[in-house]
Amino acid sequence: MENVKLLLERITSRVNANLKEFDFDTRQFVDNTIEFAKLARFYCFYGITSHHPIFFHFKNSSMAGSYFLGKANVKQSCIYKSDVRGDELKRKGDIMVAANPLPLVDDEIIMVTGSLLYKTLVHSNSHNPETPEEFTIRNTIASHYANIHGATMEGCFLGPFATADLMNLHSCILGAFSYIQAGEFYHRKIDPGVIWVENDDFKFKYQHEKEVLDKYIGVNENHQPRGLIYEFVNEKEEDYERLFEVVEIEPVKAPQSSAVNRYAVVKPKTEIGENVLISQRAYLKNARMGNGSNAQENTFIINSQLEGMNVTAHGGKIINAFVGQKTFVGFNSFLYGKEKARLTIGKGCIVAPHTIIDIDAPLTIQDNHLVWGYISSEADLATHTIAIEELEGIHGSQKIGNMSFSGSGKAFVEAFANRIEHILEANGAYFDYDSQELSGHAQEDQQIAFNTLQPYRSGENAGIYPSIRIKP
Amino acid sequence: MENVKLLLERITSRVNANLKEFDFDTRQFVDNTIEFAKLARFYCFYGITSHHPIFFHFKNSSMAGSYFLGKANVKQSCIYKSDVRGDELKRKGDIMVAANPLPLVDDEIIMVTGSLLYKTLVHSNSHNPETPEEFTIRNTIASHYANIHGATMEGCFLGPFATADLMNLHSCILGAFSYIQAGEFYHRKIDPGVIWVENDDFKFKYQHEKEVLDKYIGVNENHQPRGLIYEFVNEKEEDYERLFEVVEIEPVKAPQSSAVNRYAVVKPKTEIGENVLISQRAYLKNARMGNGSNAQENTFIINSQLEGMNVTAHGGKIINAFVGQKTFVGFNSFLYGKEKARLTIGKGCIVAPHTIIDIDAPLTIQDNHLVWGYISSEADLATHTIAIEELEGIHGSQKIGNMSFSGSGKAFVEAFANRIEHILEANGAYFDYDSQELSGHAQEDQQIAFNTLQPYRSGENAGIYPSIRIKP
Repeated sequence: MENVKLLLERITSRVNANLKEFDFDTRQFVDNTIEFAKLARFYCFYGITSHHPIFFHFKNSSMAGSYFLGKANVKQSCIYKSDVRGDELKRKGDIMVAANPLPLVDDEIIMVTGSLLYKTLVHSNSHNPETPEEFTIRNTIASHYANIHGATMEGCFLGPFATADLMNLHSCILGAFSYIQAGEFYHRKIDPGVIWVENDDFKFKYQHEKEVLDKYIGVNENHQPRGLIYEFVNEKEEDYERLFEVVEIEPVKAPQSSAVNRYAVVKPKTEIGENVLISQRAYLKNARMGNGSNAQENTFIINSQLEGMNVTAHGGKIINAFVGQKTFVGFNSFLYGKEKARLTIGKGCIVAPHTIIDIDAPLTIQDNHLVWGYISSEADLATHTIAIEELEGIHGSQKIGNMSFSGSGKAFVEAFANRIEHILEANGAYFDYDSQELSGHAQEDQQIAFNTLQPYRSGENAGIYPSIRIKP
Repeated sequence: MENVKLLLERITSRVNANLKEFDFDTRQFVDNTIEFAKLARFYCFYGITSHHPIFFHFKNSSMAGSYFLGKANVKQSCIYKSDVRGDELKRKGDIMVAANPLPLVDDEIIMVTGSLLYKTLVHSNSHNPETPEEFTIRNTIASHYANIHGATMEGCFLGPFATADLMNLHSCILGAFSYIQAGEFYHRKIDPGVIWVENDDFKFKYQHEKEVLDKYIGVNENHQPRGLIYEFVNEKEEDYERLFEVVEIEPVKAPQSSAVNRYAVVKPKTEIGENVLISQRAYLKNARMGNGSNAQENTFIINSQLEGMNVTAHGGKIINAFVGQKTFVGFNSFLYGKEKARLTIGKGCIVAPHTIIDIDAPLTIQDNHLVWGYISSEADLATHTIAIEELEGIHGSQKIGNMSFSGSGKAFVEAFANRIEHILEANGAYFDYDSQELSGHAQEDQQIAFNTLQPYRSGENAGIYPSIRIKP
């Protein structure tokens, strides 16, 4: 066990060195988070398919419950129940950005070095044109259920349920439940609960109030998460246990065009339509998944219906709700309807990332609206929504409630629409079964075999993995 | 799937090239043995402990249900449910033979190349001083439950339930249920059912009659096994299934000084004493395992008691029997007592490898006797046993029934006694819990973690594994 402790100490000191200017010590987080016995007992998985390039290299690392696909290289890191994916890594010859049409000289590879990722998802659609062949996370600690989507991440600390989306961070701290998608940040500290989407054409910003964060998702003095959202996730943890105990599992009933990952929890009365993707660690209970809809990693869909072509982004939670055609539910959103206070969201809506809707009376969001922030009543809704058509007309600055927007509304709407289209296409929502064309994850991720990897059980290396390399 | 077929075709043609002089075509065996769907569905295991050097390299190979420990390198091979061990491989600096006291320049490694091992056990106590750092199996096909114990094996075909013990074979054919331990063989064909133990000091030889082989273990026109022993083993196959389905399994109750491998089947009313080793794919049901006793791979101990310090060598089957203190039951022996016709074997006995005892009336073998061959009654026993003391007195030639012995009886008895001592020591039968001294497999094999490796599921590589390398 000594070597795991040494490993964590090394990671901690490297991250601290990067965050020195903020006088921020990650040691308290690490010391209070890691259960060493579990590191020696649990195991991780590498997915083998004929659709993804295979290259996996582990060294001086500890992993537990984690899930890898595609090319990955993990060194001096501890990855605990993180769903590091690899199915959107670029391939040799791909063009990354139209502005710089040079093809990749090699397949892109996930590189994790000197980092601790704790129950953190890492996606794999990279947006750093500096190193198109490498998807890098270095000297970084990401705490409970932080989302990292396709970005260079160096010397950072991400608080619980924080999301760094389509961007690169260097020596940054992201507060709990903050969402940022703003290109590239150097040496910045982002407050908890900030939702910030910005590019050359527009800027959208909102910050959850302290009381809301205290109730739903905050941290205690040891940087451990607390609050309603964390409790909601935490109490469902044991439902995943059986999935990790068995090597093979009876497949969930689904059409041939749909994929239900074998590490998803699918409870009774769930119905799966055509071209549906249910990712690992998704949780479905009495869920009706319409054609082309998806439930990404760490999502919860309970007593709810998704009409069709719906994206439920990583960590989205939909409870007692109806979600209309092609409505997007953003990352880590917590849509908490009640049995007698159902939430109805019309078609073509955008639920901004990190939105909290917690209602005690029925609530309806009209078709083609954007919602954001914290909504607990009709009254809240009034200051947390805008018709997408109206938004498209905005030029310049506008404030609605605590949300400030500036720039081109049209560009904002287009950016979201493009993102949603990209996700639907990548997930195989438009797959045509007869011609077998337009396939995506829902079709390509069906036949995954898993290499189940365990660490040393005893001795000074307990919890550490031997060096493992898997190639075609 | 095409590439698995190509792999098998390549193995077949290489073995055939080596066996050309015998006009022997292994193609019929291979074509009728391999169930391709299982190769793509099953998986194999690599054991991780802090007691064994770790190096594992797979390439262009297919494996299913197989179990590796220690250093191994597998290329262009198909290994199906074989228990390739590695816990007796020599280490860098070890001295192999007193006659040539040069230390090994590197840890010994199992090298399997261009071979098909079908439900075959491979042990790891090598006896080839030519290549002390390599334990080699090359261009060889071993069929159902053949035992290969620590030997160089090149261009061979081993029939079902055949054993090549402590020796090297080059371009040889071993008939079904034959047991040979005779140094080194080149270009020889051994008949079915031959039991042959020979060294510079003595020669022991027996051959089972054709009728016995036809009843208990023969092959059909496709070289597939048939007969009572094969049926006995085959009908218990499904009891192993649950063991392979789960990643972790509730440990069997056993003293701290004993090891029950998690891939052993242990059925009710079994009792495990101190310093006991139960190996992978051992099968115990209502078995009382006395202190220091062991059940090696592919053994079956049913409704039986082993008094203590007993070796049940690979593939030994003990049913409705009492086995006295320090009695050795040799490889693939079939001791088939009945509920109302129990077999009693005294203490200090040697049951020669490949002995068949099948009785319908109770039978007792006196203390300190050697038995061999086929025994179905008191009358058979008379011509298939000798007191060890009497055997020790033999010089020159002697025939008892169909058994012929020549040379020094004393040397024969000593050789067996040394072998039994080596096995008991290696297995940890003499372990002292207080001082933690004299430990062996029973103690060192307790904390094994397993990497569970799966092949490609679909496409032309279905059934083939990616290249995998595991190092410390």
